[in-house]
Amino acid sequence: MKIICNKSELLDGVNTVLKAVPVRTTLPILQCIFIDTTEGFIKMTANDMELGIETVVEGDVIDKGKVALDAKLFSEIVRKLPDSEVVIESDDSFKTLIKCEKARFNIAGRSGDDFVMLPEIGRDKYIRISQYALKEVIRQTIFSTSDSESNHLMSGVLFEIEEDHMRVVALDGQRIAIRRLTLKESYDKEKIIVPGKALNEISKILDGDMEKEVTIYFESQHVLFAFDQTIVLSRLIEGEYFQIDRMISNDYNTKIAINKKELQSCIERAALLIRESERKPLIVNITDQSLAMMIQSAIGSMNEDIDIEKEGKDIMIGFNPRFVLDVLRVVDDETINIYLVNPRSPFIIRNDDGFYLYLILPISFNM
Amino acid sequence: MKIICNKSELLDGVNTVLKAVPVRTTLPILQCIFIDTTEGFIKMTANDMELGIETVVEGDVIDKGKVALDAKLFSEIVRKLPDSEVVIESDDSFKTLIKCEKARFNIAGRSGDDFVMLPEIGRDKYIRISQYALKEVIRQTIFSTSDSESNHLMSGVLFEIEEDHMRVVALDGQRIAIRRLTLKESYDKEKIIVPGKALNEISKILDGDMEKEVTIYFESQHVLFAFDQTIVLSRLIEGEYFQIDRMISNDYNTKIAINKKELQSCIERAALLIRESERKPLIVNITDQSLAMMIQSAIGSMNEDIDIEKEGKDIMIGFNPRFVLDVLRVVDDETINIYLVNPRSPFIIRNDDGFYLYLILPISFNM
Repeated sequence: MKIICNKSELLDGVNTVLKAVPVRTTLPILQCIFIDTTEGFIKMTANDMELGIETVVEGDVIDKGKVALDAKLFSEIVRKLPDSEVVIESDDSFKTLIKCEKARFNIAGRSGDDFVMLPEIGRDKYIRISQYALKEVIRQTIFSTSDSESNHLMSGVLFEIEEDHMRVVALDGQRIAIRRLTLKESYDKEKIIVPGKALNEISKILDGDMEKEVTIYFESQHVLFAFDQTIVLSRLIEGEYFQIDRMISNDYNTKIAINKKELQSCIERAALLIRESERKPLIVNITDQSLAMMIQSAIGSMNEDIDIEKEGKDIMIGFNPRFVLDVLRVVDDETINIYLVNPRSPFIIRNDDGFYLYLILPISFNM
Repeated sequence: MKIICNKSELLDGVNTVLKAVPVRTTLPILQCIFIDTTEGFIKMTANDMELGIETVVEGDVIDKGKVALDAKLFSEIVRKLPDSEVVIESDDSFKTLIKCEKARFNIAGRSGDDFVMLPEIGRDKYIRISQYALKEVIRQTIFSTSDSESNHLMSGVLFEIEEDHMRVVALDGQRIAIRRLTLKESYDKEKIIVPGKALNEISKILDGDMEKEVTIYFESQHVLFAFDQTIVLSRLIEGEYFQIDRMISNDYNTKIAINKKELQSCIERAALLIRESERKPLIVNITDQSLAMMIQSAIGSMNEDIDIEKEGKDIMIGFNPRFVLDVLRVVDDETINIYLVNPRSPFIIRNDDGFYLYLILPISFNM
């Protein structure tokens, strides 16, 4: 095999597939990047069996062939090469020469015959969405997934498509994050649960361009994200997702409108007095025209009032500051609406047109 | 005590003294920042017994007094306050109220009677230097100090003053770093050894302005750096520093001139093939017009040629790539000169006017 390509194109390709190289594996070949040029273009693949990434690097194929190169070493070498033309040449025993200007590296390669290639995915069922929208929607929901092994479904994010609507949902037993999007086209009804880990890696590769699109193909067990010169393949999480709609009620006894930045800064300040290990709630007292934050801990005490607009009853409620901060970080509105029922029922942060809805369970407290 | 000051001024002051707050200490009071306003201005002090920092914060003293506040908590609170006017008020039992806009924090303070104040330093002996020059000279030498406990002198940096010359030296047993500066004024002959750790913290506080000055005062056991509204006090390392001049010879058998960037990139690439644990040298073969880098390891092999200008004998020599990279990072010249004697003797990177000299011991190797 012999290829010639530009260092920066090569590095982009390597960095892209690198995200699917496992840190630890029982199958050493998976710690390689597999380069396949038999089809006349430079295709690189990495696969950790949960997530697989394939990308095409711009360049010339001089001799067709295949080689698997240790991902860590290969990526480090590419990174340190001068910004110039790179020649990669493997012989029959997979010894590989990497040349760039005057630098010449010789490293051992492998045949890659035992490399686990990505399965073929049917291209019948798909949706299209902008890279920007996908990247945003991942960021706006993924923090509500849970790593815990107790319920596998909680580690995934639900994508629900119906006509030109997409609903994206994540929940971890103490909170729910829901985002709605309008798609450009209409599609058949579909539900898939994508592992949060895969989405996390995908969102790192997506460049977030509004003009560029991602096509998401899905089968019963796999999902494939195709964009630019890259495809990312992930297993789906199997099972029936939670009945979200039953968990959410539109009833409330109190509705407040509050400045998002003020609330965020105030919670950040109050959280200083809570040690992570204590798991103490933050308590707020909502009365007419003001939300009073009060915290008293072994470290000290703090209080602060924020002006609000309120409808309905007064209420005093406790919550995990981190859960609310997670939501405030991904909501862009200057003023947000919070809907509360009572100190033991979930409260909801949502906008009127239903494009986002975040539900958080309160924490009980003794005064 | 009651003071009013601006949040950003307060934060600058806190961040400055924070560098002298010990992470661990047997004297808990030292984990506080001591605020003293008895002289009519806001003075903050922190002291870990090796390093002491005192700074004055712009602001109004309403009631004179003193209080010691837990440094971690106090700094976190100040950091999270709105960008506005801050009122700090301590009562007779040192309970402290921190107010800023609508936020009110109450934390426990301490009298600070047991706080270890910085000793008075005589102001007779001193030199003046620009903040920029001091910051630079620290960066350019400090990497050659050694943390090892075996020789305390190696953990310090020597400042040698004679008339309007200053020589700054650091060495760790395998290399020497020397920088020379011209001062604006002439001073009496003086030698001090300042702990590397103190210099490291000082260089973080110095803003590196060419127009601003630092005055360095010294006594037999202490050195004091005074700049802006801040003083930093450090113990000196006692003892007789190494006879540097005996270690350095101007004789050489080979002199090469080489492009610094090319050498740096080439060594960085070659170093990829050496595992930190192996401690293998990089080997270069210097012949007429070229320096050939060759490396062969368990990981792979690499070679690269760099054009040079050479005087004297051909030579093949091995060295620790990190030691040479450390030097190349702090030398600004486009082309550098390297002087070599033989494969077992130290080689020297220096410029003609003697403003920098770096000596490195080679590593023996078998071909």
